[in-house]
Amino acid sequence: MPLSVPRHAAVIFSGGLDSSTAAYQLAADGTRLTLLSIDYGQQHRTELDHAVTIAAQLEARHHVVDLRSLGALLEGSALTDRNVDVPDGHYAHETMRSTVVPHRNALLLDIAVSVALSEGATAVVFGAHAGDHPIYPDCRPQFLAAFQQMVAVANEGHLPPGFAVFAPFLHLTKADIVRIGAGLGVPFELTWSCYRGGTVHCGTCGTCVERREAFCLAGVADPTEYAAAWAGA
Amino acid sequence: MPLSVPRHAAVIFSGGLDSSTAAYQLAADGTRLTLLSIDYGQQHRTELDHAVTIAAQLEARHHVVDLRSLGALLEGSALTDRNVDVPDGHYAHETMRSTVVPHRNALLLDIAVSVALSEGATAVVFGAHAGDHPIYPDCRPQFLAAFQQMVAVANEGHLPPGFAVFAPFLHLTKADIVRIGAGLGVPFELTWSCYRGGTVHCGTCGTCVERREAFCLAGVADPTEYAAAWAGA
Repeated sequence: MPLSVPRHAAVIFSGGLDSSTAAYQLAADGTRLTLLSIDYGQQHRTELDHAVTIAAQLEARHHVVDLRSLGALLEGSALTDRNVDVPDGHYAHETMRSTVVPHRNALLLDIAVSVALSEGATAVVFGAHAGDHPIYPDCRPQFLAAFQQMVAVANEGHLPPGFAVFAPFLHLTKADIVRIGAGLGVPFELTWSCYRGGTVHCGTCGTCVERREAFCLAGVADPTEYAAAWAGA
Repeated sequence: MPLSVPRHAAVIFSGGLDSSTAAYQLAADGTRLTLLSIDYGQQHRTELDHAVTIAAQLEARHHVVDLRSLGALLEGSALTDRNVDVPDGHYAHETMRSTVVPHRNALLLDIAVSVALSEGATAVVFGAHAGDHPIYPDCRPQFLAAFQQMVAVANEGHLPPGFAVFAPFLHLTKADIVRIGAGLGVPFELTWSCYRGGTVHCGTCGTCVERREAFCLAGVADPTEYAAAWAGA
């Protein structure tokens, strides 16, 4: 975490619950926002439309970076390869391994660092949280530390003073994020989590199960419409 | 450097002298190649055509990743912003600072890591050399070490055994690379260096001066057609 609230931050912004809450929190603190959504050909591309809507509500600068040309080369992940099924189950279970997109977060963060440096922003923010750690190595504190070190060395002499890459929710659970978001008035009904990307949340894929569980544990009413009723986590 | 020759490598391949020599060296050692060129809207986009030609000569798998959507957001670098002039002068001089694209090599390498992991390659190779160090922090040994560390942490449990990111010319000069390339039969006349991207090399921008100097110092005949005669470095 930076020592003070950043003046201007580039935020990896999927249109999901976590990054929307991060953006609302920064906005509440007076940080100028550059929101970055990435179109890598994800099966759940509908999240990009949700990102556009939420960015408009925040009246924030928003770029959708077209990375489909790269996404088309990445085979074997359920999130980019239409020949691989999105699994049902609990988000933190081993069955979710097929949803790992090789090296995704480093790439997304690099894009954010490039844009931040070009626009004079002093921070890059992403919404990784403690629940991401079991399956996704690039959401862990060790990754963030290594990435920060790499950025410092890669841009020696070119970083503005105090430049920071941080994940404000790194040690929080998704239920914590729901509680924070509720306090900030995040329009949860506009956010999108489902990896299947239908017209409503499927309710059974890993991120849907995680989302339902988080609202339940946070004691916050879940405004999401799900295709399947919930049997509980 | 890896301890052994990689079986299959993803190579950042600009169509320039350095990455072409790296690709020819790997091919000579029997490494299977995936060549990656990046279209980030560089003013010298002609290098991409040269990359295609050289890849065909090598009979190598070659992807051109379209990153123009990001390039359009990066202002202030002479390589991507048409409002900034490409400077004349010596490649290693302070005047070349305007040719720094923020955080470029981390981004290119992370793309290569993604593709390498997706295709089952065991190495990522890029052509940084000692002459790049003064101006470009993301070509220095310290950067490569920090990047390697970040990749290991970001992909814990997902890297194939022996996976390596390396820059075979990191401690060599461009003249050394010309000597190596001459020995390998690299078709230097097909490679492209000029940052201005005309129909022939301009002969006066930083990379043209560096290229001319390298052939001269290596004692290898320079087959390049330049628009301007050389007054010497």
